[in-house]
Amino acid sequence: MTMLDFHAQVQAQLPEVEERMRRVADGYHPELGYALEQLLNSGGKRVRPTVTLLVAGMLNAPHQHAVTVAAAVEMLHTATLVHDDLIDGATLRRGEPTLNALWNSAATILAGDFLFSQAAWLGSQAESVEVMQMFAKTLSIIVNGEVNQIFTRNMFPTREEYNQRIYAKTASMFELAAKAPAHLAGVYPQYGELLNTYGNSIGMAFQVVDDVLDFTSDEATLGKPVASDLRHGLFTLPTLYYLDGKPEDERVQVLLNGGVLEEERMEALIEDIRSSGALQQANEEAHRYVRLALDSLQSLPACAERDGLAELAEYVVQRLH
Amino acid sequence: MTMLDFHAQVQAQLPEVEERMRRVADGYHPELGYALEQLLNSGGKRVRPTVTLLVAGMLNAPHQHAVTVAAAVEMLHTATLVHDDLIDGATLRRGEPTLNALWNSAATILAGDFLFSQAAWLGSQAESVEVMQMFAKTLSIIVNGEVNQIFTRNMFPTREEYNQRIYAKTASMFELAAKAPAHLAGVYPQYGELLNTYGNSIGMAFQVVDDVLDFTSDEATLGKPVASDLRHGLFTLPTLYYLDGKPEDERVQVLLNGGVLEEERMEALIEDIRSSGALQQANEEAHRYVRLALDSLQSLPACAERDGLAELAEYVVQRLH
Repeated sequence: MTMLDFHAQVQAQLPEVEERMRRVADGYHPELGYALEQLLNSGGKRVRPTVTLLVAGMLNAPHQHAVTVAAAVEMLHTATLVHDDLIDGATLRRGEPTLNALWNSAATILAGDFLFSQAAWLGSQAESVEVMQMFAKTLSIIVNGEVNQIFTRNMFPTREEYNQRIYAKTASMFELAAKAPAHLAGVYPQYGELLNTYGNSIGMAFQVVDDVLDFTSDEATLGKPVASDLRHGLFTLPTLYYLDGKPEDERVQVLLNGGVLEEERMEALIEDIRSSGALQQANEEAHRYVRLALDSLQSLPACAERDGLAELAEYVVQRLH
Repeated sequence: MTMLDFHAQVQAQLPEVEERMRRVADGYHPELGYALEQLLNSGGKRVRPTVTLLVAGMLNAPHQHAVTVAAAVEMLHTATLVHDDLIDGATLRRGEPTLNALWNSAATILAGDFLFSQAAWLGSQAESVEVMQMFAKTLSIIVNGEVNQIFTRNMFPTREEYNQRIYAKTASMFELAAKAPAHLAGVYPQYGELLNTYGNSIGMAFQVVDDVLDFTSDEATLGKPVASDLRHGLFTLPTLYYLDGKPEDERVQVLLNGGVLEEERMEALIEDIRSSGALQQANEEAHRYVRLALDSLQSLPACAERDGLAELAEYVVQRLH
C-alpha cells in the first residue's frame, strides 16, 4: 500500500506522540510501564491522534500542546479498551493477547485506571480548562454508553438508539480529537462547531464501517469470530437494515430472547444478512457521514492539513473495499 | 457525641457538596444514579471534603469553586473505593453491601470508571489547570500504590515502603484536599507547602490510626474480621513494631511465605501483637504526625476555620480512644 498523504503529514509527529505516551509510566511501578509498552506495540493505527495533529496543524496550534493532546486522546482510547476487553472477556485484539489474557482481573482493572489517570494527566498538561472539560465529558459519555449496552443486551435498538450507542462508543472520541486543538489555537468560537461535525461524522462512519466489516471480513482478519456482536446479542446497523425487510425472522427472535443459535443456523443468518442488501445500505450510510465530514471542511482554512483531513475521511470508508 | 466545632463549621456546606455530587448523574443511565445514591447513603464521614471546605474558608476561596472541588475530592475517593472493594472481593463497607456485592463485575468496573469521569468533570468545573493537574497526579499515585500492593503482598515492607504505601493509599488524597483550595484562592505560592504538610500529616495519621484500629476494634465495628490486613499477608505498622522486638516469630514467617495460619494460631499472634506495646508505638507515631499538622497551621491565617483544622487533626487520633 502506498503511503497516503495524510499519513505522510503526521509521520514525523506520531513518534513524538508515542514517546509522550511512553514517558508517562516513568517513576511508576515497572509492570505499568510494561503494560503500556504492550498496548502501544500492539499496533493501533493511531487514527485519533492523527486527526488531532492534522487539525492542530491546520489551525497553527502550539506544537507541544498538540502533541500532548494527541497523546492524551490516544491514552484515553487505550484506557477504555483495557476495561472493555476485560468486561467482554476478549483475549485477542489485533491478533495480540489482551492485557486481561496475561494478567489477573485486579491488575487489569488497575492498569486501566492508571491509563485513565495518565490520560487526565496528559490532558491537564495542555493547560486548557476547556480541553480538560472535554476529556472528562467524553469519558462520561463513553462509560455511560457501555453501561447502556450492558443493560440493553438482547434488546432490539431503534435506529436512534443504535446511533446513540455508536456515538458514545466511537464518535464522541473523534469529536474530542477534532475539537480540542481549536481550544489550543484559540479559535474555538469560529471553528468549534465545524470541527465537531467533522469529528462526529468520521467517527460515526468509522463505527458503521467496523459494524459492516464484522460481517464481511473473516475470522483471521478480525481476530475474533465473524459477526461477534450478533453472536453476543448486540444488533448493529446491518442487522437493523436486514430486519427492515424481514421483521419476523425467527432466528433473530431467538437472539432477542437471550437464546443461542446452533452454529449452522447462525451462519445461515449471517449469510442471509450478507446477501440481503443490508451491507450496501449500511455502506451508503457510512458514505453519507463522510460527505458530511467533507462538507464541514469546506469552511475551514484551506491548507495541506485540510486536504489530509479530507483524505482521512475517505480512508475511513475505503477500509470497506 | 457532641458536635465538634469543625463539624458545625461545615454543617451547612456539606449538603451542598452532596447535592453537587448527586447532580453529576443527571442525564446518564439511571443505574449509575442509583449506584451513586447507594454510595453516598452508605455514610462516609466526609472528612476529605471537610478539609477542603475549611481550608477554602480560611483562605477566602470562592465558595462555589470550593464546593465543587470538595465534591470532586469525595467523588475521586468514592471511585477508588468501588474498584478497591471489587479487587478485594469485599462485600461490606461500613456495614452496607458494596457495589460489587450487588452488581456483576462488568457493571462495577464501569460504575467506578463513571465516578472517575465525574471526579474529573467536577475537578474541571473549578476552572483551574493546577487543580486538574493535582487531581490527575493524585489518582496516578493512588493507583500506582495499589499496583505496588498487589505485587508485594506477602513481602515484608521496610518502614520506608510502609510509609510510601499509606501515602499513596490515604495521605495523597488528604494532600489534594488541603492544597487544592489554595489554587482557588490564588495563594498557592505562600501557603501551598504548609497545606501540603498539613494534609500529608493528617492523612498519614489517619491511616496509621486505621491500621491500629484494625487490631483493637471488633468485627462488628470493623464490618470485617479483626486484623484483616495481616490475614491477607499485608503487614502494617503495628506488626512492623512487633517484629522489631521479635524478628524471628515463626507465625509471621508462615504468612511471609504466603501460607495461612489456623484460626487459633492467628488469634494468638494478634493477641501477642496487641500486648507487645506495638500498638502504643504506632499510636505515638500517629500523634507525631498530628503535631506536624498542628505546627504547619501556625503559619496559616488565624481564624475559626484554622481552629477547625486543628481540631480535625486531633480528632483523627481521638478515634483511637
